[in-house]
Amino acid sequence: MQDTTPRPASRFERRRARTRQALISAARQILAETGESTASIQEIAERADVGFGSFYNHFETKTALFDAAVADALEEFGQLFDGLTEGIEDPAERVAASVRLTLRLAAFHPEITQIMRLRGLVHLHDDIGLSPRALRDLTAGRESGRFRIEDPAIALSAIGGALLGLLQLNTVTELDDHTGEQMAELVLHMLGIPVDEARELAARPLPEPS
Amino acid sequence: MQDTTPRPASRFERRRARTRQALISAARQILAETGESTASIQEIAERADVGFGSFYNHFETKTALFDAAVADALEEFGQLFDGLTEGIEDPAERVAASVRLTLRLAAFHPEITQIMRLRGLVHLHDDIGLSPRALRDLTAGRESGRFRIEDPAIALSAIGGALLGLLQLNTVTELDDHTGEQMAELVLHMLGIPVDEARELAARPLPEPS
Repeated sequence: MQDTTPRPASRFERRRARTRQALISAARQILAETGESTASIQEIAERADVGFGSFYNHFETKTALFDAAVADALEEFGQLFDGLTEGIEDPAERVAASVRLTLRLAAFHPEITQIMRLRGLVHLHDDIGLSPRALRDLTAGRESGRFRIEDPAIALSAIGGALLGLLQLNTVTELDDHTGEQMAELVLHMLGIPVDEARELAARPLPEPS
Repeated sequence: MQDTTPRPASRFERRRARTRQALISAARQILAETGESTASIQEIAERADVGFGSFYNHFETKTALFDAAVADALEEFGQLFDGLTEGIEDPAERVAASVRLTLRLAAFHPEITQIMRLRGLVHLHDDIGLSPRALRDLTAGRESGRFRIEDPAIALSAIGGALLGLLQLNTVTELDDHTGEQMAELVLHMLGIPVDEARELAARPLPEPS
């Protein structure tokens, strides 16, 4: 994930930060491969190419590492979306673009996509990744009257879950951009956008990943 | 899960069936507690109160047992829903009732609900549990013109995912029947049911679990 903290001053601190990130990267790989957090600390340290002993300098438990790894992947995805959708003012168009981009990016970001699919549901209401961004857009759209929803958290549950369902469908059938458009339309209907407008919004040109 | 196969003839076969079911029940408990399939065969056998050696008389691998356990739980839930919703003719009302009942039953069937939440997504397009039943209703509703959807599999991804998102929200906030009604309305909007009709359908009396 993009590091926005200041560069650590000393060589020791820089090495420490690299070791921590190596452990997180190893845990991300393991999560993407298996979805389970059952590898031993020895296996994780070997994959990270760090000494077994240094694990506990960074994480109290394996669970803490895997939680950090999921947060790291989800937050990287959230920041990627910030860059892609920042020019879209209308919350409805932004939601539609996010749905379509999630599917389109699955091929380019397989590790993050796997982690989202296999571990994302239990983090759906955490304050990391796409969720807080979606909640912000849903709340804004509700206040402006763009979305006809009562409770943004329930809408987030529905849309986030639907996106995970789409990622799951993508593992059993090869999906194309048209599928993303269909799902975007369904989500817009859910938010109270009329059918014709939903179709138009879901077919707009997408921002290009750089 | 309700056993619909004929009663095995011999005492040996009955004991064999009991052992198999004990292993499945143990695996269901473990899945509901942790969501992970990492308990050792020894632990599973102890919890099932069967000999370690008998495991391999029934399952080739631990994965095979856990797959069977998930299938067993999902199918039990599907059969429960068959009983509850069999009198509902309109596919829209049936979908709305299923959404609301899933949330209402979470308190009465915690084990199945946990297994659905923690392991359900990857089985969303399998031919077990609520999924094939929902796909049948979505397909029928599409053919009759009741639902304005293009591809029932995409609608299933959206609705199934949304339901799992709701079960997840239920673990972080205590939800009530009104939440279930809201989610049912969102799902009906998605399927193209007009807003006023969706509200009325989502507020109808629910079948009572027996």
